[in-house]
Amino acid sequence: MVVDRNSPVPLYHQLAEQWASAISSGALKPGDPFENELALVARLHLSRPTIRKAINELVRQGMLVRRRGVGTHVASQVVGKQNSLTTLFDELQGAGRKPRTQVLRMQASRPNRTAAEALGLRPGTPLVYLERLRFSDGQPLVLLRSWLPPVFHDVCADDFADRSLYSVLSERGHEKAEARQRIGARMATARERHLLDLTRADAVLTVEWLSRDADGMALEFGEHSYRGDSYVLDMDLRRD
Amino acid sequence: MVVDRNSPVPLYHQLAEQWASAISSGALKPGDPFENELALVARLHLSRPTIRKAINELVRQGMLVRRRGVGTHVASQVVGKQNSLTTLFDELQGAGRKPRTQVLRMQASRPNRTAAEALGLRPGTPLVYLERLRFSDGQPLVLLRSWLPPVFHDVCADDFADRSLYSVLSERGHEKAEARQRIGARMATARERHLLDLTRADAVLTVEWLSRDADGMALEFGEHSYRGDSYVLDMDLRRD
Repeated sequence: MVVDRNSPVPLYHQLAEQWASAISSGALKPGDPFENELALVARLHLSRPTIRKAINELVRQGMLVRRRGVGTHVASQVVGKQNSLTTLFDELQGAGRKPRTQVLRMQASRPNRTAAEALGLRPGTPLVYLERLRFSDGQPLVLLRSWLPPVFHDVCADDFADRSLYSVLSERGHEKAEARQRIGARMATARERHLLDLTRADAVLTVEWLSRDADGMALEFGEHSYRGDSYVLDMDLRRD
Repeated sequence: MVVDRNSPVPLYHQLAEQWASAISSGALKPGDPFENELALVARLHLSRPTIRKAINELVRQGMLVRRRGVGTHVASQVVGKQNSLTTLFDELQGAGRKPRTQVLRMQASRPNRTAAEALGLRPGTPLVYLERLRFSDGQPLVLLRSWLPPVFHDVCADDFADRSLYSVLSERGHEKAEARQRIGARMATARERHLLDLTRADAVLTVEWLSRDADGMALEFGEHSYRGDSYVLDMDLRRD
């Protein structure tokens, strides 16, 4: 790590660029702990604000991940494949990670206008509401909020602890056949920051999701919020 | 607008929910200006922090958009279609919006290790670097950073002012046939905040992009950063 104090390029930016290339080149590996600020100050003889600014830049770029009580690590992102209909649960297992689901809330009868309309039901229809937090290797990755049509009123929270929503629906004869997604980015809400263990200024990747079975019956309207520093979506496009 | 001061639900949250449903129901329309804080304080007899907190909540959720010098408006998002290979430029025109492109930088020979590797070239290969800011109806929407293989070293900045990159490449006999995308969310960098006219705490939707022609030749490695409050991506999925 060499910085040039006579360069017009700010020191923090020189630092950030060198760390970025160390990460790109593999000298720093995904999941590796990143040296803490005070140790870096002592080792590099740079001021703490300079060190902090360089680290912040890489956190913004998603190359470093900061977690409360755990410290800063080189990002190891989960890569979602979005050309097929595989579930996140299966993707995590396929990638050798340990998925775990915490059911935060499950209500058999809760009307929601937006969700009902998306599902093609009357606005006042009582829907099944399911709120889950999914972990990958023990870290919170995504907050999944799902509304299901009333036919599923008797699913129970325990069903979802170690299985995906769609394996539960599939047992009931409804196989997911198609889905429509709307993907966006925004700042995390207060609740998301708390549940996903984010700091004040963090971004989430949002997926608004509507799935149907082969008969065209709407199965789930979902609002899913992924930690921006931990998840990316890959997809292939071809000419029509 | 009625708030219940005896409710356990915080006032700002009651406000935010009512505004959100006014937007969802269409009572407040995309692009409409949103009443300013002081006028709301006077009209609703609520404190300024309460009003501000409610507005912030909707800005975070992408339902309101704040722009410097312009004020707060109901969001009117550009909806990208990501199942096909249409360009953003064509999408904007198709949606009746006026796209405009500002070429910020154009360098005929600039090596970049990551881009060269993505394009399947040796790390030191001089690439064509193109940096564009694209506006929709006069508002900055996306910062497009593109690296092209050296065969395109003689494109010129003027080519891109009123046309898409791919119409320029197509004239040279290279038609885009497939692309691979990686989509993510993160906080805007200082430069993106400046160019996209964002505030300190704003999120961008990032698209890392690699396209090829029908012969498999890599055409563009791109890093595109969309304003999170102004752009969403729609896509349809089907069972394999």
